[in-house]
Order: sequence, then C-alpha cells, then structure tokens
Amino acid sequence: MSTPGLGDVTRGRVLFGGDYNPEQWPEETWQEDVRLMKEASVTSVTLGVFAWAKLEPRPGAREFGWLDRVMALLHAHGIGVVLATPTSSPPPWLGRLHPDTLPRDRDGRTEWWGGRQHFSHSSAAYRRHAAAITEDLAARYGDHPALTMWHVNNEYCTYDWGDEAAGAFRRWLRDRYGTLDALNAAWGTAFWSQGYGDWAEVLPPRRAHYLNNPAQVLDFRRCTSDLLLECYVAERDIVRRYSPGVPVTTNFMPLGAGQDAWRWAREEDVVSVGLSPDPRDPLGAQYGALVQDLTRSQARGPWMLMEQAAGAVNWRGVNHPKPRGLNRLWSFQAVARGADAVCYFQWRQSRQGAEKFHSGMLGHAGEQGRTYREVRELGAELARVGGEISGRHAPAEVAVLHDWHAWWAGTQDGRPSREVDPAEVVRAWHRALWEARIGTDFAHPGYDLSAYPLVVVPQLYLLTDAAIDNLVGYVRGGGTLVSGFLTGIADRDDRIRPGGMDARLRELFGIRTLHEWWPLDPGEHAECDGFRGTLWSEEIEAGDGVAHARYRGGELDGLPAVLRRGRAWYVSTLPAPDALRDLLTDVAAGAGVRPVLDGLPARVEAVRRQDLLFLLNHGRDPVTVAVPGTHRDLLTRRRVTDAVELDRYGVAVLAP
Amino acid sequence: MSTPGLGDVTRGRVLFGGDYNPEQWPEETWQEDVRLMKEASVTSVTLGVFAWAKLEPRPGAREFGWLDRVMALLHAHGIGVVLATPTSSPPPWLGRLHPDTLPRDRDGRTEWWGGRQHFSHSSAAYRRHAAAITEDLAARYGDHPALTMWHVNNEYCTYDWGDEAAGAFRRWLRDRYGTLDALNAAWGTAFWSQGYGDWAEVLPPRRAHYLNNPAQVLDFRRCTSDLLLECYVAERDIVRRYSPGVPVTTNFMPLGAGQDAWRWAREEDVVSVGLSPDPRDPLGAQYGALVQDLTRSQARGPWMLMEQAAGAVNWRGVNHPKPRGLNRLWSFQAVARGADAVCYFQWRQSRQGAEKFHSGMLGHAGEQGRTYREVRELGAELARVGGEISGRHAPAEVAVLHDWHAWWAGTQDGRPSREVDPAEVVRAWHRALWEARIGTDFAHPGYDLSAYPLVVVPQLYLLTDAAIDNLVGYVRGGGTLVSGFLTGIADRDDRIRPGGMDARLRELFGIRTLHEWWPLDPGEHAECDGFRGTLWSEEIEAGDGVAHARYRGGELDGLPAVLRRGRAWYVSTLPAPDALRDLLTDVAAGAGVRPVLDGLPARVEAVRRQDLLFLLNHGRDPVTVAVPGTHRDLLTRRRVTDAVELDRYGVAVLAP
Amino acid sequence: MSTPGLGDVTRGRVLFGGDYNPEQWPEETWQEDVRLMKEASVTSVTLGVFAWAKLEPRPGAREFGWLDRVMALLHAHGIGVVLATPTSSPPPWLGRLHPDTLPRDRDGRTEWWGGRQHFSHSSAAYRRHAAAITEDLAARYGDHPALTMWHVNNEYCTYDWGDEAAGAFRRWLRDRYGTLDALNAAWGTAFWSQGYGDWAEVLPPRRAHYLNNPAQVLDFRRCTSDLLLECYVAERDIVRRYSPGVPVTTNFMPLGAGQDAWRWAREEDVVSVGLSPDPRDPLGAQYGALVQDLTRSQARGPWMLMEQAAGAVNWRGVNHPKPRGLNRLWSFQAVARGADAVCYFQWRQSRQGAEKFHSGMLGHAGEQGRTYREVRELGAELARVGGEISGRHAPAEVAVLHDWHAWWAGTQDGRPSREVDPAEVVRAWHRALWEARIGTDFAHPGYDLSAYPLVVVPQLYLLTDAAIDNLVGYVRGGGTLVSGFLTGIADRDDRIRPGGMDARLRELFGIRTLHEWWPLDPGEHAECDGFRGTLWSEEIEAGDGVAHARYRGGELDGLPAVLRRGRAWYVSTLPAPDALRDLLTDVAAGAGVRPVLDGLPARVEAVRRQDLLFLLNHGRDPVTVAVPGTHRDLLTRRRVTDAVELDRYGVAVLAP
Repeated sequence: MSTPGLGDVTRGRVLFGGDYNPEQWPEETWQEDVRLMKEASVTSVTLGVFAWAKLEPRPGAREFGWLDRVMALLHAHGIGVVLATPTSSPPPWLGRLHPDTLPRDRDGRTEWWGGRQHFSHSSAAYRRHAAAITEDLAARYGDHPALTMWHVNNEYCTYDWGDEAAGAFRRWLRDRYGTLDALNAAWGTAFWSQGYGDWAEVLPPRRAHYLNNPAQVLDFRRCTSDLLLECYVAERDIVRRYSPGVPVTTNFMPLGAGQDAWRWAREEDVVSVGLSPDPRDPLGAQYGALVQDLTRSQARGPWMLMEQAAGAVNWRGVNHPKPRGLNRLWSFQAVARGADAVCYFQWRQSRQGAEKFHSGMLGHAGEQGRTYREVRELGAELARVGGEISGRHAPAEVAVLHDWHAWWAGTQDGRPSREVDPAEVVRAWHRALWEARIGTDFAHPGYDLSAYPLVVVPQLYLLTDAAIDNLVGYVRGGGTLVSGFLTGIADRDDRIRPGGMDARLRELFGIRTLHEWWPLDPGEHAECDGFRGTLWSEEIEAGDGVAHARYRGGELDGLPAVLRRGRAWYVSTLPAPDALRDLLTDVAAGAGVRPVLDGLPARVEAVRRQDLLFLLNHGRDPVTVAVPGTHRDLLTRRRVTDAVELDRYGVAVLAP
Repeated sequence: MSTPGLGDVTRGRVLFGGDYNPEQWPEETWQEDVRLMKEASVTSVTLGVFAWAKLEPRPGAREFGWLDRVMALLHAHGIGVVLATPTSSPPPWLGRLHPDTLPRDRDGRTEWWGGRQHFSHSSAAYRRHAAAITEDLAARYGDHPALTMWHVNNEYCTYDWGDEAAGAFRRWLRDRYGTLDALNAAWGTAFWSQGYGDWAEVLPPRRAHYLNNPAQVLDFRRCTSDLLLECYVAERDIVRRYSPGVPVTTNFMPLGAGQDAWRWAREEDVVSVGLSPDPRDPLGAQYGALVQDLTRSQARGPWMLMEQAAGAVNWRGVNHPKPRGLNRLWSFQAVARGADAVCYFQWRQSRQGAEKFHSGMLGHAGEQGRTYREVRELGAELARVGGEISGRHAPAEVAVLHDWHAWWAGTQDGRPSREVDPAEVVRAWHRALWEARIGTDFAHPGYDLSAYPLVVVPQLYLLTDAAIDNLVGYVRGGGTLVSGFLTGIADRDDRIRPGGMDARLRELFGIRTLHEWWPLDPGEHAECDGFRGTLWSEEIEAGDGVAHARYRGGELDGLPAVLRRGRAWYVSTLPAPDALRDLLTDVAAGAGVRPVLDGLPARVEAVRRQDLLFLLNHGRDPVTVAVPGTHRDLLTRRRVTDAVELDRYGVAVLAP
Repeated sequence: MSTPGLGDVTRGRVLFGGDYNPEQWPEETWQEDVRLMKEASVTSVTLGVFAWAKLEPRPGAREFGWLDRVMALLHAHGIGVVLATPTSSPPPWLGRLHPDTLPRDRDGRTEWWGGRQHFSHSSAAYRRHAAAITEDLAARYGDHPALTMWHVNNEYCTYDWGDEAAGAFRRWLRDRYGTLDALNAAWGTAFWSQGYGDWAEVLPPRRAHYLNNPAQVLDFRRCTSDLLLECYVAERDIVRRYSPGVPVTTNFMPLGAGQDAWRWAREEDVVSVGLSPDPRDPLGAQYGALVQDLTRSQARGPWMLMEQAAGAVNWRGVNHPKPRGLNRLWSFQAVARGADAVCYFQWRQSRQGAEKFHSGMLGHAGEQGRTYREVRELGAELARVGGEISGRHAPAEVAVLHDWHAWWAGTQDGRPSREVDPAEVVRAWHRALWEARIGTDFAHPGYDLSAYPLVVVPQLYLLTDAAIDNLVGYVRGGGTLVSGFLTGIADRDDRIRPGGMDARLRELFGIRTLHEWWPLDPGEHAECDGFRGTLWSEEIEAGDGVAHARYRGGELDGLPAVLRRGRAWYVSTLPAPDALRDLLTDVAAGAGVRPVLDGLPARVEAVRRQDLLFLLNHGRDPVTVAVPGTHRDLLTRRRVTDAVELDRYGVAVLAP
C-alpha cells in the first residue's frame, strides 16, 4: 500500500481553516461556529490538540461524547477534520500521579502543570498514558468519515535534564557509541578530566561551574530530538494501525531549534508548520519566504501551513495586528511557495487562558470585525482558485544548505564570537537570494545536490566526512558552490579539524593556511574591495585560490576576503546585504541561474509554482509590474498583457 | 464602643517621629536618643518592628526587660509609642525548627533567614508562634501609658508557592468557588487541557514550560493578599482584646502591588504608608502626591506617613540624598494632603545591617549633620503649626479609579503589549491632573461616586459587572466619566467580554465595534488631531459616539482617537503629557471642576485642606505666587495680601 | 633549610613555555610536540592540571605510565616540568560516589560535573581523595629530575552554600568569634531580628527575601578564601614532604575577587598569575600593567606569568586575536615588571572540549600559522636576553593600597551607589599613575609603608583600626598620602564608623563633618575647579584641611572637592582621567617622585627593572623615544645614543 499524503486530503483544493477547540465553548456556540465556517469557506479544522483532560478527566476515564457530536456536526457540513492526539498537554492528574512525568530544567527546576507541554519525553509513565489515549482515540475515530488527517502532539520542543531523561540519554549514547571508550573519545573527555569509567556517571549537561563539554551538549540536543521523535513515531504507528489510509503530520516550529527536521520530515506523511512573522518586521515577508522554502524542501512537495495568525499574536513584547490585506498577501505567499493548506491558530479566539490575546479567524470583535471579514474574503478566493493551484510542486535551482547538527554545535558557549548566530547567518544569505529574486530550496549537506546548478552554504560549522566529500564531489561534477565562513570547522563529534578547517575544503577553495579568525565587534566593519563586511573576517593565506575581493586597511590589509577557485567560492566575512545580493546574483548568473523575473519594482516578489507566476506586492503603494506576454490572472479572472497592476499588498496569480 | 482612630493619637497635633530600634544600641545611647528626640520635637516613635529575636531569643523565652526600660524612658519624656508586633522577621530558630515556615518561590527555591520577611503566610507553625509573641506583647503593654497605637507586622508583601501555601490556596479556592466545576469554568481550564478532577491537583502557578494560566495567577495574587490579611487580622484581634481603645495599623508600600489596599484599609483603624520618592526624579513630587492622594482616599480622612527618608535610601542603583529643604517640602506636601503624622525610617541610622546606608533622622554625621539639623527645624515647625492643621479632611472633586484586581490581571504574560504597565498609566493620568492643578481622590470602581462631578479611569482592564453598572449609573446620574483604553475588557474571572470590551461600556462611549488593538512600539507615536498618542492606539468603529479627535496618517487614518458620547469620554491612546493635561482641564471645566488656584507658576503646587491653602515650591528658584485676598501664613505667622513669596523649596500654609 | 623559590627554577633564565596536556593527544603527537617546543625555545611546561581522571580513572586506581613517559620525554629534551596536582577537576566518579563533593550555589542549585571545578572546598570526601592522589603523585615524581616546580590545583575561585559548607562556615566562625555573642555583635544581628541563639542556626548567606546581612556575606567571602587556602596548604604540605627543595605555586586569577591574595601569597614559594587582556581594549596594556604590578608586589620579587593567550581567548563575547607583534610586546611588558617566566595556556590548542577556541602557542593552523611563528621568535629572543634580565627585582616608589576585605565589603547590595565598583576605582587610579609614567607597587594597608615616598589609596571602604593607625603613622612619619572617597568608612566588621568616616582619618585630612554622600548618576559630572568629577561627590565641611579644589555649581557649590592637610590629600570624587593624572603627577612631584622617563611619546611606556630600562610602544605607528645618554639595547645588541626607534608594538631593553 502506498503512503497517503497531502493530496489525499486536498483532493484538488487548497485547504482553508484552523485549529478548532469546541471544548472551550458551550455547545450552542458550535452551531454558530459551523455557520460562520461555512460562510468563510472553511474546509478543514484541527480538533483536540489540547483536549486530553476533556477526553480523560480522570485516569482511565474516556469522555468521547462531545467529540462524537463535534465530529458529526462538522461532517454534516462537509468540513474535514484533522484529529490531534492530545499528548502535548497532559491533564493535571498525570503530574500528580506520576511526578516523574514532569521535566526538569538544566538547573533542576521542575516544570509543573498549569501551562502546557509539561511532559518528559523520557518518562515511561507519560509514554504509557499517551499511547493509551492515542490508541482509544484512533480506535474510535480511525474510520470516521470526517477524519482526513492525524496530527500527533504539537510543536515538539521540550527538554529534560532529569533522572529518567538521564537514563534515556545513556541508552541513546550506548546505541551511538557502543563503548565508553568511544564516548570518551568522541566527547574529548581527556579535556578537564571528564573521563567516564562507568555508564552510570554519564549525565545530561546540567548546570556546571563553568562551560559544559560541548560534545556532550551537542549529543544531548541530538538525543532530545531523537527521543521526541520516538514519542512521535510511537503515536504515529498507533494511529496508522487504525487508519492506514489517513496521512499523519506533526507541526514544526518555524526554523525551530529543537528538532532535526530533515530526519523528522522523513517520518511524516504531510509536512506542516506554524508561521507568524511580525507584521512590523520590514523583513517579515523574507522570513516567511525562508520558512516556506525550508518547509517545502522538507516536504519535497506541497505542504501545509498549519498555524498562522489572522491578526496579532500574543508572545511578542508588542503584538501588532495585521494591517488590512496583509493576511491575504502572506497567505498567497505561502501558496506560491507550495502550501496547499492555509490554516490558522485558531478558529475562534479564546476568551480565557494564556492565549486569549492571540487573534483568531473569528476574533473578539466577532463576525463584524475586520479580521473575520478579511478571512471570509480570503476563504472565498482560495475556494475559487485553489483547484488551479493545488498539487503543483516546483523545486528551485538553488539549494541553501542547512543542518541542525551544525547549528547545535555552532551555538555553544565559549565560541569565537557570540555575535555569530548560525540561524541569523542563514537568514542573511537567504535574504540576499530573496532580494536577488532567485528562488531557493533548502537541502541537507548530505543530499544529492547534482540537480542544482548552484549550492549555497551560509555556514555549516560542523560537517561530517561524507558531507564534505559530497560537496567536493558536487563541485567536481560541475556544480557551483558558494560558502560562507565557519564552514567545515568541526567533524561529527565537534572536533576541530586539523588546520582549523577541513583540508579538503581548504583545497577546494584554494586556501593554504587559515591563520586566525578575526571576529568583528557589533557595529564594526571590515572594508573590502567594493563592500563592507560585518560580523567576521579572517586572516587567510591563499593557495591556488584567487582573491575576488580583498580586505583593505586594518590588520588584514591585502588579504583575500572573497576567494575563488574555479566554481568554488569562499566568503570569509558577511558582506553587507546589498553586496551579498550582488555577489550571489553574479555567481548565480555564472552558474546559469536567473532571477524569477527581471525589472521587478522594489517591494514586489515573484514566485513560480510550475507554470503559475505569483506576483506579491509587499508595499503599501500600488505598483505596475512588467510581465512580458499575455497571462490570465486567476484572481481577477482577467487577461493581462505585458503589465499587471498590484494594489497595496496586492496579489496576482498569472497562468499562461 | 466606637472604633479608635488617628485622632485619638494626634489629639490635635501633627505627629513627628520615626522608627526607633534601641535594641541595636547600647543602653547609654538611649539617653542621648531621648535628648535629641526632644530637641527635634519628636512626639511618636515606633518600637519593635524587628525585635522578635530580642524578645524571644529562644523558642518560648520572653525578654521584655529592655523593652520595659525603653517604654518607661520614652513615657518619662512624653514621647508616645507605636508598638509593633515583631512578626515580619522571625528569629533564626523558627526557620531551623520549622523549615515549613520558610517561603518557596515560583522556582521552588527556599527563601532563607538572614534577610527579613522569610515567613510563609500559610505556615501553621509561623502563625502559631506569631500569635503567641503578639499575645504576650499585648498582655504586657496593652495598657502601658506610653502606648498610642499598634503596628502589626511590616510592609506585608511576600509570596509563597510551597506545599503548605498550596493547601491554603486550595482552601481559599474552595471558599471562592465551592466546586471544582466552578473553578474549572472560572479558570477556563478547557484551554490547554488543564481541567482539574481533584482538588489535590490544584497548585499555585509554579514554574511552567510556557505561560501559566492567567486566571490561576490572578487568583493566586488575590489569595496571597487575603492570606496576608488573615495574618494581619489575627494579630490585630489579639492586640485589640488587650487594648480596645488603641488604634491598629499596618504600613502599606506606596502603590504596592501585593495587597488589595481597598480591602485592607477597611480592617485598619489608621491607614499608614511609607513613601520615599527619588530626590532626583523630576516627577518625584507628583509621585508623592499620587501616593498621598491614594492613602488619604483609603483612609477616608487623616492618615499617617509612617516611613519616609530624611535623606538617601539604600535600595536604588544610585541613592541620592535630599537637597537642603526638600525634606521639609515633601513633609508639608504630605500634610497638605491629609497626613497628620510625619514619620521616618528611622530615628538613628544603623551602623550595621543591610540598611546601614539608609539615612536616619539622626544620620552617621550625628547632631552636627545637616540632615539632623533640618529634621530638628521641621519638628519645631510642625509642633508650632500642627494644632491648626491636624484632623482636617478634604476630599477632592475628582476621583481616579484604581483597583488591584485589574492591575493584577493586566500585568500578566502574553498580553497585547508588555509596554503597558497599568501602574504607569495611572501615574500618567494622575500627572495630567496634578499638572492641571486639579485635586484628586482615588476610588474603587464599586464605590458610590455620585459626590464627584468627574471620575477618571486611567485603565481598568478587569471590571466586574457590578462595577460596570456603577459606572454607567454614575454617568446616567449626571456624572462625567473619562476612560482610558483597555478598560472593561475582562470580567471578574479575567474572561474577555464579548466584543472584546464590555457592551455596556461600548454603548456608554458610543463605540459600535472595537476591531483591533494597535499597541505602539517604544518610541512610536500615533498622530492625532492636535496631539501625539503613545503606547497604544485602537481601530474603533464609532456608533453614536462623536470623535473629539481622530488619528491622522497610518493605518488608522480618520478613525476616532478620542470619542465622546455626552458626558462619557473614551481615550483610545495615551496622549502626550501636555495633551492629556489639556484634555482633562477642558473636561473638568465642563464638569464644573476648577484648578485649585489659577495662574500658578510652573513648579508651584497648591493644595487645599479644608480652609487651609498649602503652597509648595518644587523649584530651586524663589517665586512669587499670586493669591487674591489676605491670608495668614501659619509658618511665618505673617499676613500676606494678594501675593506670597516662596523660597527655593519654599512652603506657605495660608489660613483665611 | 631555606625556602625554595623561582630563582631555583629559572637559574638565570626567563622561563618560556606553557600548559601541556599530552593526555589529550595520541602519543605519536608527543614527539612532534617536543620537536616544536625545542624549535620554540620552550624551557618549561606545566603538566597534569586536568589529569585526575587519567591518573585515577576508577576510585583508587593509579595510571601513571603515560605520565612517566611524558616526564621522561621532556626530561630527555631538557624541558623542565611544573607538575600540577589535578585536584581542580575531579573525575565523574567522585561526584557520583560522593554527591556531597558537589557545590551548591546560593539558590541551592548543584554544580554538576561535566565542566570543571565542581568540587566543594568543604567536602571531607573531596579533601580525602584530593590528598590521596596528591600524595601518590608526589611520592612518584617528587624526585623526578624533570620536576622543577609544583602547581597546586588551578585558579581557586569556587563557592559553596551547601550543608557541609555551612558546617565549615560555622567552624570558621567559631574560630573567629569564639562565642555567639561575639558573632551577634560583629554581624549586628539586632538589625532585622537575626540574633542567633544556637550555632546550628548559622548558615551561609543563602537566597533571602530581601538583602542579606552584609557582615555575614563578608565573613562568608573571608571564610571561602580561607577554606580554599586550607585546600591549597594541605596539598602543598604533601608535595613539600616529598620534594622539599621544589617550590610550590598556585596560579591567581588577575585581580581575582575570590582570594585574599596577600594572605595566599605568603603561603606560596612562587607567585604566579594568568593574564589575558582584551587585544581590543585601548586600556588593555594598562590593565596588564596593573595585574603585573600587583603580582610583583605579592611576590616581593620575580614572579611567573603562568598563563597568557598567544592569540584569542574564548570567554569573551567577541574574542579578538592578537595582532602581529602584540604577543611579544605584552610578554616583554610582563618581563619589564618582574616576570621571570612567560608562559601560556596552552602549548597545543585543544581540538575538543570547552576551550578548543582558546588559542595555543601551537594553534589549529599548526607550525605554519602566524601565531606559532611569532611564539617561536619570541622564545628565541627571550632565550637570548633572559640571562641579562632574570632575577632582578625593582620595587617602585609609589604604593597603591588594595585589600580584598575592603573590596568584598564594598561591593554588597544596598550600598550608596551600585555604580561604584572598587576594582574599577583601583583601575582608574592605577591608570592615572600609569599615564603619569610613575611606577607603582601595590601594598596591603597594614604593611610597613615607610619606604614609599607616596602612598595612594584609591578606595578602602573597610579599614581595621590597625590599618588606620598605620596610615596615620605613615603620614606622621613623613609620607605623603592621597586617598579617594569611601575610605575608612567601616571597621573590621563592616560597622560604619561614628561620623560616617573614621575620626582619625577625618582629622588626618582636615575634615570636620562629612554631611552626606552625593553619588553621581551614570554620565553625570560634578564641576570642580579645573576638572570634572564623576561617579561620586560629597558634602564635606572642612576643618583645618585646605580646599585644593572646590565644587562649582549645584548643591555642593563652594564645598571642597579635593582637600589637603599637609601631606594628606583627600579626593572626594573621581576626577576625569587627565585630571587625576595631573593631580597625582603634582602630588608625586611634591613627594619627590618623578616619572620613569620624561618626554615620552603618547603610546610609549617606560619601565625600569633595576638598571634596565624597558621601552614599550603600545601604538601601531613607529616612534622615536628620546633617551639621554648611551645604552645598549639587549634585543638588537646595538648601542643607542640619546634616541631609540621603536617599530609598531616595538620593544627596547636598554642596559647601561
């Protein structure tokens, strides 16, 4: 039997809807909900994400009646249900009965119930109770006609430094290393007298007097991702048993730090994500694009925007609402980048609880509120055009490499510069490509990259031998590679490679000696030929690499800033945004990669999804976009020739 | 028998004195103390605030001899004693014997002895020992001729998240809600799967993975205030039994966050407060005025300035002394606003301990020090004029509404803007009235407001149904009401009201739909007709309210910023200080409320206390103040006609 | 038998080398290490600092084979070994077997293994195991021919608030005070009801609700220094037993806060320190000079620069490498100030562990790297000239007084200004002297100061009676004393002295009354005659002191800012750097103290070490320095007459 996927749910549509928590409302409200959902063209809702205590109010109890009624009601109105396992927020009784289910932080402090996600991924009691409720839920609703998808848990992102987690960590380490000798070697425990003589001595990296062992911290993060994945897989396998044809997902945090998403995505039938850029962030749209590119790349096809905000969120310092039109614009941006589902947290804004100030599709202002009215218009629009969009997949020509292991290793204490945040470096490089209007995928450094004319490595501090061979082979095979600094520094175990950077990479880029890193202070610049570098600079002695740009002035005067050897480029600083954009535009052109569209106005984005061309005006002023030839705009249903008018936050979806 | 009050102590005087801790000094110093007190016209000292370990050095021991001698000495010199129960700082032996008397913080960390206030309000052992020492103290001194007042504990302000406190919280919740169903409904536990099935599952809002339940946090703060009040009442009732004619007080922290002071004040015979504005704060005098207005309103009559600093405090980052004259000026400001006691922490500056850098009436520099010399002059002055001031009460024409429950609910995590601090908003509105020279009371939103021509609501995020009806009825009855934003948003349980703001209030102000809140970033402004708003703005659709001022430019262009419907005004942003002052001046004039005095120079404050007019020059330059007619200045004992000269920090007290 | 000293190790050389951790590397690397050490003229390496787990991988095991081989190899190549006791980082098994060996912080949190220094100084189990491994190490290598020095533990700096530490604290307090009455008096426990009735009630100053008792905190820091010293002495005595002729050291942290270094230095045969100023700090060289002056003064003769960084460190936010030449310059600066050993952390940069980004003499770039090449050149140079430098001691004419007890007492919470950091004040005064080109020693306030024409007290908040008498006697005996503010405020027990400042000192400086302190806000200035004061000002009434400069404007207008009575000067503010430099230049001249050299260019430092004159160019531009007469430059081996040319970061060592 083939694996089910998002296409089995969308069936030619772009799904529209959101999280629905009817258990927070009296049943009379449900009728109004369904009426307003229908008016808003809602086709999919996610139920039960935080319903464990409603389903199992006492240990072993089962209260399915209310859920039966909601499922029936939704089904009666043709609204599909993504049913969640409720395991991300256990009921209070679980913590009381089994205090060992509560996580401990690095300082030994308990994370109590009263919020959410107060479960230890390693707790046997938690896993047992989570499996039981999942099993019963799957048994009851596995073949319910409203069921379209399973959603396991929610935003996996927790850590545990406690004793039971220590046991799980040791088990994981035994699997990885086999012997203590191997662990001691991998962790470099000869440093600071940390040699382990007994497995029982091995602990999570708890609070220490001074810096923790970085390899231990790295493995703890790897292990945490894997233990959470065990939790996911256990529940996934249960629901699959009961409904083999129903796809399973769990929603990622955008560019979340906690999960090795490449590995996780392989275990999902549908890749989904939550995404709520700050409406005030001038680069909010670029951040959205990055998350969308990353999610599409993880999905290797259409994906699900599981949770966005119709208006303001409630977790920033100042939570700005979405100005008129922005919700529509950013929704179409996601669709342009492969989303076949546009969903929200949440349908009806809560009146109580910690997220009562997080907007909903139906806000506190109700159906007269601007937010709901815009939601309704968007729903209608997606319903109308979804059929001509859904299902298309359009990989890009450029791959940006990203790897969680490198990120984890590259963000530890005691590194050359705390100013260097790998995630920010990825954002800077993606921004350069985005502003160059070059479409990008993301990829793991170990993937087959041969289909990409251009591969970009913003920063991969840690690279395995296999990944390095992969990159070298890629260039040897005709590919063009651009790498930023701090790439290939450490091996799999976060061991610094001889010479301070892998010898194969140094050869690839034509570097003879990497003498010293010269990280830059906040606000400091390194003058280079034609641009200014920020964040970092390097004292490099070139081998047979050619200096494309040199440092000018200061201690590095005359040394190469950008080094090139054939199709391999090395950028030893972070050029200012325009400079990096121009550099990548040139390198891409050399590799035969062109912008999506030429001559675009400043704030307009163009995205291709197979034969469809999405034009998105991120500005508040109307603009005219030159588009050679004649197209049909799916939204206006009009033909346009050579030019398209876009209103403030306007969108066009042009078909040939 | 009628309740004793402050008048029974002052007997026509303005009390002058401070905390006196003779136990820190050898007995030979006491003689010098009394001599210098007499020279400084001291009439009242507070004894024993931190004397528990001296009184009960071992469990059950009683060492009253030293206190007998001090009381006798003071009595012999005609100095009255406010005797404190020493229960705010238990002796070390109590913590050692009963570790359960030590509070735990939100993270589970113990608060050990070695500082002060290391008692759990919920600890049965603490309460038992506190009652015992209080009982014996009251039995011994209840009819002592020096005794003028009882002072219970000190600055109640502690929290406890520990296990015994959890039990007390559950007891309090059972009293409040009766059933778990009611609690689950009030707390909205359907959100995030927090439904409680057993009382034993209910905990204080301890450290959680993510946001705590806000209704739980709110009730925890309510319960904390009530448990502390239980402690107070228990001790009060004991001392009352032994000295029914002696009034009882406990000192509030200025605008303190921990106690529902409206409720507490009802349990006190004398309302007292500590107040030490930063001498460097350009708005220090306004802050003082606010605390004084609030305290007078709680007292509904004369009150006691229990603790101010003669010079520098020691708890700021940089602790500035009081420039020459400022101590006198701020003391008279308190008297102008109803204080019948001007007292200090403390008489003689400590040489040891955590507050040895907090000034005293008699500082380290001794009787030659400038501070003591100014104290002595002030004492003499108050002794001379007190008889013509004491006992007068003068309510104001404007009531500013403030409520602790609204404050607690409005300062939680996950709210629209962390920049909005309800206490700061109150300060901003009070400042506007202060700068408009309009005298103000404070009032609880549930009080009878009909005597006030004008009521001002800076911000009451949470309002009960009864309070809303009270406000609506007040306007209907002819009152003028001005409300700031974020008022009437939540009900008693912090449940957002339908429409995002109470429907009765929306009708009152003429608001059809409150679409979205648009909080402003720090430093951001919202341009409005004639002024700039800060902190907040709103997307409002007016009903039959009339826009007094509109937003100009930006996303809210043309929408109402200030809305008026008859005598009800709604201000949806925080106008810049001058603008808010002018707005309130106009609205007050419309309600028939005039400034205390017209044509006052910039830094001069005028306060009426019945037929007395206090003029206070907060500037360092001498000024002339026009005062029509002829008055007698109590301080200079001269008649003044049409104008009064005020020196730097000068004061005049004009009688008809 | 006379005590061995550094001279027994240097034997006429300046030692060169660093920490060597061969246990982190395969044995084949050792051969390369030794080859490169020899090429770099390395004469001394420190072994075993973090080798406990290698030496004792299981409780009681002994693995000395690898160390035997390393010692033999080094000896064969003529490289001396400073052998460390490995007790600063116990193996994991110790924590597992004896959880009581793990320290607890103020909040009760355990400091786990997995970093370093996770030992409680008070743990009997720790001390027992530390003694055992030390004993066996000493027995085995005590007469090894490669052994030149013992290095006990490493950078003692840990605290412990746990239960066993509480017991040790009580023991220390009983020794100090004898009776609880004496302790209660010294701690001023009458304040805040802290009187102790039983020793068992006395605790370390753990987390409290509000401010901890400052005398308790002070004693806790004293006790911590003493308990760590006990650990040191215990190990020192063991190794001395086995090798009585081998000197013993432990390395200080530069201007470290944790140890009373005056007392510690007396217990060392060799005083050593680590020092790594920020290469980017414009005052990095001055900070280095301060630490060097302090270390030389503690050593009372030549000392050992135990650990510096050849390039970047890894513990700052941004870790800058050393520009070309800076490593040499700062090394010679240390030698100029009496260092007879120039050593590094560490020989070979680690590839793993928490310090893999800390530079080594042999960095990741290897022997081709710039860092190693500069190290090699410096080694050769020191080998060539060391014989003409080593062993010389040159005390200065000015003593700067510094005392840890005053520092500890002066940095507590609740003080007049958190902006006043005694260590920063010392830096400011030392800087003034450094910029005045006046050589300085440091001294304890209780030392015999009569040899110094000038004594400078930047700030000694706490002074014992004996120390005050010492200072008064020093001036009476003809010395010139300059004191900054906040000096002589508290007695030994941190009890404020009557009058707010010791009466003897007030008389010495001609102060009648110290009315109030007027600390200044950050960025605020106090205008004075001819300069601006920062940080602090004071309201002083002069007695027979003469105002050298007065405050101008503001509240202190006309009051003395700098007061002089004969040879005693009191500076009641912190003058701007140039003003303090000029003031001290004048006062020094009056005391007959001249700059090291006149007419020095701005960035050039001159230091005398007996008859040698070191010239150090801290600028990046070449300069010419006028030096009257003819000298021989040890480095160039040329004669120079009347002028010396110094390159960027250039050094000259002129002999007569």
